[in-house]
Amino acid sequence: MKQSYFGLLLALLLPLLGLAQSAPGITRINPTNWWVGMKNPSLQLLVYGPQAGTLTYTITYPGVKLVKVNTVENPNYAFLDLTIAPTAKPGKVQIIGKKGTQTISQTWELRARDNTPKGQGVTAADLIYLAMPDRFANGDPANDKFADLADPNMDRANPFYRHGGDLQGAARRIGYLKELGVTAVWFTPVLENNQPLTNEGGTMRSAYHGYGFTDQYNVDRRLGGNAAYKAYVQQAHAAGLKVVQDAVYNHVGQNHWILKDMPMKSWLHQWPTYTNTSYRQQPITDPHAAQIDKKVTLDGWFVPFLPDLNQQNPYVANYLIENAIWSVENFGVDAWRIDTYMYNDQPFMNRCNAALLAEYPRIHIFGESSVNNVVDQSYYVKNKIDFPFKSNQPGGLDFVLESAVLGALKDVGKPEATSWDGGPQRVYQALAQDAVYQDPTKLVTFLDNHDHNRYLSEVGDDLDKFKMGLTWLLTTRGIPSMYYGTEILMKNFKDPSDAEVRKDFPGGWPGDKEDKFTAAGRSARENEAFDFVKKLATYRRDHKTLHSGRLMQYLPEKGIYVYFRYDATGTVMVATNAIDKPAALPTARFSERMSGFTKARNVLTGETLSSLATLQLPAKTAVVLELLK
Amino acid sequence: MKQSYFGLLLALLLPLLGLAQSAPGITRINPTNWWVGMKNPSLQLLVYGPQAGTLTYTITYPGVKLVKVNTVENPNYAFLDLTIAPTAKPGKVQIIGKKGTQTISQTWELRARDNTPKGQGVTAADLIYLAMPDRFANGDPANDKFADLADPNMDRANPFYRHGGDLQGAARRIGYLKELGVTAVWFTPVLENNQPLTNEGGTMRSAYHGYGFTDQYNVDRRLGGNAAYKAYVQQAHAAGLKVVQDAVYNHVGQNHWILKDMPMKSWLHQWPTYTNTSYRQQPITDPHAAQIDKKVTLDGWFVPFLPDLNQQNPYVANYLIENAIWSVENFGVDAWRIDTYMYNDQPFMNRCNAALLAEYPRIHIFGESSVNNVVDQSYYVKNKIDFPFKSNQPGGLDFVLESAVLGALKDVGKPEATSWDGGPQRVYQALAQDAVYQDPTKLVTFLDNHDHNRYLSEVGDDLDKFKMGLTWLLTTRGIPSMYYGTEILMKNFKDPSDAEVRKDFPGGWPGDKEDKFTAAGRSARENEAFDFVKKLATYRRDHKTLHSGRLMQYLPEKGIYVYFRYDATGTVMVATNAIDKPAALPTARFSERMSGFTKARNVLTGETLSSLATLQLPAKTAVVLELLK
Repeated sequence: MKQSYFGLLLALLLPLLGLAQSAPGITRINPTNWWVGMKNPSLQLLVYGPQAGTLTYTITYPGVKLVKVNTVENPNYAFLDLTIAPTAKPGKVQIIGKKGTQTISQTWELRARDNTPKGQGVTAADLIYLAMPDRFANGDPANDKFADLADPNMDRANPFYRHGGDLQGAARRIGYLKELGVTAVWFTPVLENNQPLTNEGGTMRSAYHGYGFTDQYNVDRRLGGNAAYKAYVQQAHAAGLKVVQDAVYNHVGQNHWILKDMPMKSWLHQWPTYTNTSYRQQPITDPHAAQIDKKVTLDGWFVPFLPDLNQQNPYVANYLIENAIWSVENFGVDAWRIDTYMYNDQPFMNRCNAALLAEYPRIHIFGESSVNNVVDQSYYVKNKIDFPFKSNQPGGLDFVLESAVLGALKDVGKPEATSWDGGPQRVYQALAQDAVYQDPTKLVTFLDNHDHNRYLSEVGDDLDKFKMGLTWLLTTRGIPSMYYGTEILMKNFKDPSDAEVRKDFPGGWPGDKEDKFTAAGRSARENEAFDFVKKLATYRRDHKTLHSGRLMQYLPEKGIYVYFRYDATGTVMVATNAIDKPAALPTARFSERMSGFTKARNVLTGETLSSLATLQLPAKTAVVLELLK
Repeated sequence: MKQSYFGLLLALLLPLLGLAQSAPGITRINPTNWWVGMKNPSLQLLVYGPQAGTLTYTITYPGVKLVKVNTVENPNYAFLDLTIAPTAKPGKVQIIGKKGTQTISQTWELRARDNTPKGQGVTAADLIYLAMPDRFANGDPANDKFADLADPNMDRANPFYRHGGDLQGAARRIGYLKELGVTAVWFTPVLENNQPLTNEGGTMRSAYHGYGFTDQYNVDRRLGGNAAYKAYVQQAHAAGLKVVQDAVYNHVGQNHWILKDMPMKSWLHQWPTYTNTSYRQQPITDPHAAQIDKKVTLDGWFVPFLPDLNQQNPYVANYLIENAIWSVENFGVDAWRIDTYMYNDQPFMNRCNAALLAEYPRIHIFGESSVNNVVDQSYYVKNKIDFPFKSNQPGGLDFVLESAVLGALKDVGKPEATSWDGGPQRVYQALAQDAVYQDPTKLVTFLDNHDHNRYLSEVGDDLDKFKMGLTWLLTTRGIPSMYYGTEILMKNFKDPSDAEVRKDFPGGWPGDKEDKFTAAGRSARENEAFDFVKKLATYRRDHKTLHSGRLMQYLPEKGIYVYFRYDATGTVMVATNAIDKPAALPTARFSERMSGFTKARNVLTGETLSSLATLQLPAKTAVVLELLK
């Protein structure tokens, strides 16, 4: 990958060598449009074209004021600071650039805001379904590949190539998600990834995952483009599903259009020789850290083909923040997942979060910070620790709980299940550290994702353990998310391509031999899993106690872990037996929560318990009881 | 042990049955004396004797005012609230109790404060040596056993019996500790433990460890009594050693004199049936915890023969706080280690800490809270987390770092040494969470103690690992402490009696075949260990940089962990190679700390390094370099 790095340096040097001395013009304006009536009246337009930075700009449009024109190292850019008055009306704004006798006029639109739902947020009332659009369902085989893209290939047999999945295909499965009890969908990024397939030291690297943006104002054509995304959101909303957008601020793809002719060298984090991030969180929170370790974590590149954006550059920061708001406003998405949150400049992240929350007060923001302890996890969300830096992020992905749950499930049925810190103790102890968060119920919980081993494989293909972890996920605190295919027992361990954990959803492609979107296409075991998720997810969906009810957990004893969700409307008891034998559980110890209840309904079996004095817990099972008076 | 529990209940009932109706009298007053000129003018005297609670009290002494006489359930107690004016002079105070025609007079002394050092504190400039007086050295065979004590036995061949060690014996080894580079000594508790040897379900339980007080105003006779302790402190101070007292507030021995005739039922935490503490910290800090789990942690008994004091009872609280101050003032100790800190009522602990700090502003207080994560560890010291309860404890024992160091050393020389979270990463990651503490340099660090496996056994009897861990202990942040015998390679794993990790120090007893207090009595390997500790401890003792210098640690790479201590007077670099092969370490990465230095002295070998560009690190070694210009 060193070649492409040097390619970037070359791209940087070209304008300085004066090779771009063609006739002045404007070829791009970002954001591509804006809206009247936004809370923040300020906007910075990136104007690009040959010698665009050498023009003298005027804008004559009622309510729109050109405050300042910023020129930068590269004469092909101008950054126009505008204010848009509350009185401004929708319409076409003419951006006029003059140089000598030449006049260039470019139309740029101010639109009216529509009143469709957007920024609705996701809360603990939701169940998020994470899907990778290229691998979920193919609705339009005509958009599977394009000869003019850097990677013109499509081949479902090749783990590195595009497989053809798209938003049109996903839209047809909205009903499937509704049936399952899902209330929100999160796609890995949909923005254009016009990235080449590369060979990095013998390892192939592809971009079907979506994390290497090449243009933040276009949804990838292979997924259906902007129109398909907008249509997807509308259809999802109509069905009562929310949509989470996956955002990437830390880096862009090496083929990002701006990198071909950068505004200035400092658009990216530059290093004398290629420097990868250490992927380590400690240098950020460690009071004893060295500056160089912090710099490597933050400014080191994620991988060679994903150049690292310098968010301390105010033009970069404005560009990213405005794109975030544009995305929510344009597509109507409801929540915002942020990739590699901890490698971003944190003051920038706070600005960005604040800007989104100012326009969309209910939007939920949850970043990915893959850490191994709650202190570091809390650093990246609103927390109760007096760190030198205070994050304003409302939520985050709960990596600590994922690790605790998987560790606990590995112990289930073994002697470790009853050991001092093993078995359900792991889950109990992780949640017992929730005092570090301002609001742990805003964390997004999960059992696996597109970067981890599939959950079913992590639990040794054991359906008892599989159900136990899902029961915890769907009944404990937090906003649960589930990776696509979990419900149909998709499994596998990560391989170098990651493709083993990103297999196509069977039935998503025309002509697929199996269609696991339908009960008839699923095996008995797959239907057992699907029905299990469906039962619990729909119960959860319909019961407020599992959304906003408080959590009370009891110290696990002898491998039995008991917790309650409770509020004025009800009490749900979850009693997990992590040992490999049935257990009788006397309930006197739980009187603080069970007092007044005499019966219960087993949510999963439908069985009614007429006495609560002693509960019979099957081996390796989490029992969910709705307590009744 | 149920028998002794019922015995206590019986002791509680006796006064209610009116069996104590003998002639009134005063047999005990606690504190046994007090001093003029203390900062806090208030004092509550516990007055005990037949019908002592039925007397009418008067005190006529200039500057001493009897504010209130409190009577309680048991008529044999009166609690007298006094104020002692700053003008009060030393002298004998007559405490007069009248009932009808009877007058009882009891003398109680107000002493002048002496100006000997006391409450000097321990800091990161110190090295604490933890010894168990019964197992360290026997100076007076005449006090080895007493026929009138509950356990009249002494037998060095029996792990459960007293072995005869005492403060007189320890006093003769002050020179040995000085030679080793130790600056403070911490004895397991010295107060009277007139406890029986008991058989708990086949397991013998003895009290030679000192954690079951039966009278807080007497040092155990077998250790030499109050006089020997006072003399020890004076001799230690004269030699420049500080003394740490080991305090126990959570419980007392079942033979404590007060328990024979309790002031009130609520002196102890009472349970309908015997309830042990869960030994779990989580219910205290967990925002989701159940009340019963908190109660079991805090109010459950530590073991059946150590009844749990109710510190929410104000008489109990006053009794314990005044005894703490009395101990420091009477014996002149410098610091205060608190047993089972996390099972105490925390508001009480704050009151107690504040009272000690008010009288002795420099005293250091560090409790034992055996937890497995920094969130819980920080809860019990001054921290930066907005917990509902805010501890005022200045320090604490660093169990998290102990566990990290032992885990790291287990990985040394194995593939785990270079794994993502293994080897020195464990130490690095533990310290990287120091942001949770107000001042992590006040934590007391250690590698083992009287309740853990001996350090040498934990590291597999590997002298390389042994040295590595000690190097970390003596050069990283915190107040290091070392368990007796570590320096002469005492080893062993815990057994049910714990005696395997509490062996007699060879040479501490008259007639011992070996005397490892002397170089001649030690094997070559033992001298190697002793000399290693001595060299590093004396270097540390004499170099301020290792006391108050800041710590900067670098992300470990390839099993190599580098950190620095630095201040205006110097820079010490510690470079650890945790792999089983020598390594060459380029130092360019460390320029933030190494810039300006051109040479170094290897503190352990004395070797001079004339170039710092690349360091040669032997396999499995922590190199300590004093950087030179």
